[in-house]
Amino acid sequence: MGSKSDLHIMQDAADVLKELGVDYEITVVSAHRTPDRMFSYAKSAADRGLKVIIAGAGGAAHLPGMVASLTHLPVIGVPVKSSNSIDGWDSVLSILQMPNGIPVATVALNAAKNAGILAAQILSTADEYITQNLIKYKADLASKVEESARGMKDEGYPSEYDA
Amino acid sequence: MGSKSDLHIMQDAADVLKELGVDYEITVVSAHRTPDRMFSYAKSAADRGLKVIIAGAGGAAHLPGMVASLTHLPVIGVPVKSSNSIDGWDSVLSILQMPNGIPVATVALNAAKNAGILAAQILSTADEYITQNLIKYKADLASKVEESARGMKDEGYPSEYDA
Amino acid sequence: MGSKSDLHIMQDAADVLKELGVDYEITVVSAHRTPDRMFSYAKSAADRGLKVIIAGAGGAAHLPGMVASLTHLPVIGVPVKSSNSIDGWDSVLSILQMPNGIPVATVALNAAKNAGILAAQILSTADEYITQNLIKYKADLASKVEESARGMKDEGYPSEYDA
Amino acid sequence: MGSKSDLHIMQDAADVLKELGVDYEITVVSAHRTPDRMFSYAKSAADRGLKVIIAGAGGAAHLPGMVASLTHLPVIGVPVKSSNSIDGWDSVLSILQMPNGIPVATVALNAAKNAGILAAQILSTADEYITQNLIKYKADLASKVEESARGMKDEGYPSEYDA
Amino acid sequence: MGSKSDLHIMQDAADVLKELGVDYEITVVSAHRTPDRMFSYAKSAADRGLKVIIAGAGGAAHLPGMVASLTHLPVIGVPVKSSNSIDGWDSVLSILQMPNGIPVATVALNAAKNAGILAAQILSTADEYITQNLIKYKADLASKVEESARGMKDEGYPSEYDA
Amino acid sequence: MGSKSDLHIMQDAADVLKELGVDYEITVVSAHRTPDRMFSYAKSAADRGLKVIIAGAGGAAHLPGMVASLTHLPVIGVPVKSSNSIDGWDSVLSILQMPNGIPVATVALNAAKNAGILAAQILSTADEYITQNLIKYKADLASKVEESARGMKDEGYPSEYDA
Amino acid sequence: MGSKSDLHIMQDAADVLKELGVDYEITVVSAHRTPDRMFSYAKSAADRGLKVIIAGAGGAAHLPGMVASLTHLPVIGVPVKSSNSIDGWDSVLSILQMPNGIPVATVALNAAKNAGILAAQILSTADEYITQNLIKYKADLASKVEESARGMKDEGYPSEYDA
Amino acid sequence: MGSKSDLHIMQDAADVLKELGVDYEITVVSAHRTPDRMFSYAKSAADRGLKVIIAGAGGAAHLPGMVASLTHLPVIGVPVKSSNSIDGWDSVLSILQMPNGIPVATVALNAAKNAGILAAQILSTADEYITQNLIKYKADLASKVEESARGMKDEGYPSEYDA
Repeated sequence: MGSKSDLHIMQDAADVLKELGVDYEITVVSAHRTPDRMFSYAKSAADRGLKVIIAGAGGAAHLPGMVASLTHLPVIGVPVKSSNSIDGWDSVLSILQMPNGIPVATVALNAAKNAGILAAQILSTADEYITQNLIKYKADLASKVEESARGMKDEGYPSEYDA
Repeated sequence: MGSKSDLHIMQDAADVLKELGVDYEITVVSAHRTPDRMFSYAKSAADRGLKVIIAGAGGAAHLPGMVASLTHLPVIGVPVKSSNSIDGWDSVLSILQMPNGIPVATVALNAAKNAGILAAQILSTADEYITQNLIKYKADLASKVEESARGMKDEGYPSEYDA
Repeated sequence: MGSKSDLHIMQDAADVLKELGVDYEITVVSAHRTPDRMFSYAKSAADRGLKVIIAGAGGAAHLPGMVASLTHLPVIGVPVKSSNSIDGWDSVLSILQMPNGIPVATVALNAAKNAGILAAQILSTADEYITQNLIKYKADLASKVEESARGMKDEGYPSEYDA
Repeated sequence: MGSKSDLHIMQDAADVLKELGVDYEITVVSAHRTPDRMFSYAKSAADRGLKVIIAGAGGAAHLPGMVASLTHLPVIGVPVKSSNSIDGWDSVLSILQMPNGIPVATVALNAAKNAGILAAQILSTADEYITQNLIKYKADLASKVEESARGMKDEGYPSEYDA
Repeated sequence: MGSKSDLHIMQDAADVLKELGVDYEITVVSAHRTPDRMFSYAKSAADRGLKVIIAGAGGAAHLPGMVASLTHLPVIGVPVKSSNSIDGWDSVLSILQMPNGIPVATVALNAAKNAGILAAQILSTADEYITQNLIKYKADLASKVEESARGMKDEGYPSEYDA
Repeated sequence: MGSKSDLHIMQDAADVLKELGVDYEITVVSAHRTPDRMFSYAKSAADRGLKVIIAGAGGAAHLPGMVASLTHLPVIGVPVKSSNSIDGWDSVLSILQMPNGIPVATVALNAAKNAGILAAQILSTADEYITQNLIKYKADLASKVEESARGMKDEGYPSEYDA
Repeated sequence: MGSKSDLHIMQDAADVLKELGVDYEITVVSAHRTPDRMFSYAKSAADRGLKVIIAGAGGAAHLPGMVASLTHLPVIGVPVKSSNSIDGWDSVLSILQMPNGIPVATVALNAAKNAGILAAQILSTADEYITQNLIKYKADLASKVEESARGMKDEGYPSEYDA
Repeated sequence: MGSKSDLHIMQDAADVLKELGVDYEITVVSAHRTPDRMFSYAKSAADRGLKVIIAGAGGAAHLPGMVASLTHLPVIGVPVKSSNSIDGWDSVLSILQMPNGIPVATVALNAAKNAGILAAQILSTADEYITQNLIKYKADLASKVEESARGMKDEGYPSEYDA
């Protein structure tokens, strides 16, 4: 992430990666304040054994795109609605609108959890254990919605659908 | 893709996948006009051996997100600036802003080529051949820029940088 | 609605339907977390005797459009400004901008009350009782404004209009 | 519609209504240039036997909302991207964002065809003939997509899905 | 104004009109909830001796434009950022973007004070007393800024400009 | 106007002023390229007998607001969608969003005709001849719409409304 | 700055200029309320020995552009998200979108600190002392990020990168 | 510039620098396709004797901000409305919205000419020759406007202002 102040957002990625059985590391790398650190981090990532990089940043958010320019690994970008952002539009557009040749897999504003899930999905293409965890994760999501629907019926909200 | 009218955009994904040595299939599946087809396509995708799905659509573009809800595979979304789109904003936002639990790896507006590269990057996490193709692809991108810089110098544009 | 967290918004639809003498049911159906539930809910709706469906969702809000793709019933969409929304623009555009063939009757951001009134208007095209309730409802709206105008005059705000 | 210059857009509504077996009338009523005509048109609509009103307008588009304020009939609004519009945003927002009490069933920018289909759906809630036409219309939409998918396969695009 | 809930905004217009020596009346007229009241108010305004009308409304704000369609008097529109507004954009665009033939003199979001000043300026074109009040009002604005600049210097902020 | 390149837009104001019987002058004054000319033009305007000023400009359009700061006359601003504008948003916002104390009567994007009509309305508050011209102008607008409605009926478009 | 109410933002510029060893003055000059003061301030600036001007303003922010039109000195504009601004868009666009011939060096919304740094950079092109201060300032920025990365590692966040 | 395809825009900067008597070099450096070239270009710039850097790029435009992170020289950013841009918003926001510490002096969309003038202004703070050229340049801008005003008068447009 570009700044430790984004940790309260990016922690969600770490948490869901743990839940899905994926090893990860987490650190601060700023494209603008530590360009050298970013260069060496991104260039050494594949050799250090990383498979996917999640980069979160706000405002004129150059970290995800610059990391993507420096590695052949897939890079997931999390637009962060930081305090210096114009309602998040700057974060979204400066991560999403990468030129041809250098994609960044962009997720929703502040959606670090989805970045974690997407990283797990990427790894799952060659990992049956993570695949099973993802299948279970999706099933749990559905169960919670169905439970919430039954709960509303029990509370007296009218519905004929759930018998 | 959601409509054959998006083929002139989505063809770029097919072309770059071929260039990077990745097998693919391409077809039309509309979330809104053929929801049943979409359901069975997305649900059967993993069993049919697909590893990554690229979904392109415009306007209220529900195809990428709905496919992502129906499979545990990674889904890449291409917002298409179709004729019924408001400058592309609807396509971008209805693909990008997925709720927690169901990510779509969104690329830039009309950036089907980047969707293809991203798919190759995802597969490359477990495929050395594709990895090497990606490394070469990135090197070619750089060479073309450097060549273009030298070309400008040769045409007489002043620059001391490229000796 | 796509999530029970939208209940505080969608309750307004239920309340106004009750006020206008229209029977309704209310439940949670998530396009992304429970796509199967959404499919069977939408496909069985007409046979179960539903006449109109109101669907509220936020962010990349696919529920209204997907329900509309799965039934021939009129579908009313309520864009919800949920916590993961970019100022509501994503909710509005992903509900409103449906492609030709599959309309969603979209109301204003968070305007669940208007969704309820619109549903009553739709039913009133063949129901004299609801028609009379709507006529009375509109008259009450006018009365309250006129009363508020008279009240301001009584409080001393200058106006020659209301004699 | 608010101006005859919108006819090339609004004609789509007339055409699809005809296709779906719904009687209609079509005329020009301008909220701003003929407010009296709009008042009497909207106020007499129910008594003249109209069941649904489709109103299309662009820019500061007040016609749909004002008609809705003057009748208890359901009103469908078509935002038109007219020449004096800022990319259609003004048309969309001034039709969609109606206050509580006075809904307008808004469809996508320039989506007069969807307005026609929505009107037919509204009438179909009490009309079996229109219902059957809608069911057939939806089936035809799906067939065309499937045909287009088979066509691509025949042209040599790779796909294993359609056997 | 369209709703008494806008009074805390529109009061600024009343206050500045009083300060500038202009008589006014203030009342509630809703385009959508009391269209008949709006019609008779706007149509009778010139005969009742009004010279300028200030109309404030929010969301799909039709009041200023509809009043302008019903009178030949100049109409000033105040876009109000009401609770049902999308960041004020809907209010601004549905007041500003009037079609050719029916202007509304639009002021900034929530700028009821400026609406009052503009009304006074309009009347001042044939009223020397109001003209003098406006000239004094502008001089006072300048004095306050200059005073604030001197104040900052006195507080120790460095500046060579004000000797 | 800020540049002669805006003449094709601003000519509409001149034409409608002529039609409504209002004397006018027209010239080029650039806030940014000729600030001294703008200062003396605006400051001398009232003494030279001008009653209303129409200022049109595009991009970061400072002319209307600066003229308003330099005179007590009412100033009408026309946002021009010039070649250096971002879809007109910059022109609209930099004219409309004036601070408290210095209003600009803003009309729609490129709506120089409405600026002319508004100027006539302002003068009509003390001029019966212009008032009558405005009343006739509005009546003509209505007649043209009614004629166009009758024309559509004559061309065979179905409508029961115009007997 | 255009108003003393912007001082809490603009103070950041003063603070960083002090930190970087640059002399400055700070005062209030309003383009709209004190146009004469703005004229004489901007026109006398070069003769008074100023080298760079930083101008901050919000809403229809004309101060930076007008100052730039009145001096040949470089002018830095700070868009302020003041209370009368539409999410800052008006401030940004009316400062940034200057016509050809009259540039304003625009920084991010509320980024007065960056305006100060930019002013120092401008002066550093001919001042070795400020140059050294800037080099040190950049080094400090990097150190803080690296420290924060080490801190996270010490707190137990997993990372192999920083050995 | 980030791509030779931006040359038709960026040429304006070169032309005006020549006109103002400023030496320059021009080349292609892509942040995303040639990150190493960008690093060495930016890091060596000060030592090679460059005083100011103008960087133009479109879409997710990271070049200006990244160059600014790698040098203490002032960096001017030109947002280019390239073919892969969403109406220029992405280019503007990803250049303008830099975080605290690393400013980019941003000019208007496609305003390479203004970037050149701003660069000259920066150098003029320590260069009397460039200062005189800038003063003359501004005077010429004014003359052309005044000439154009006189031309309109000669063509018969009514104006009493220019005697």
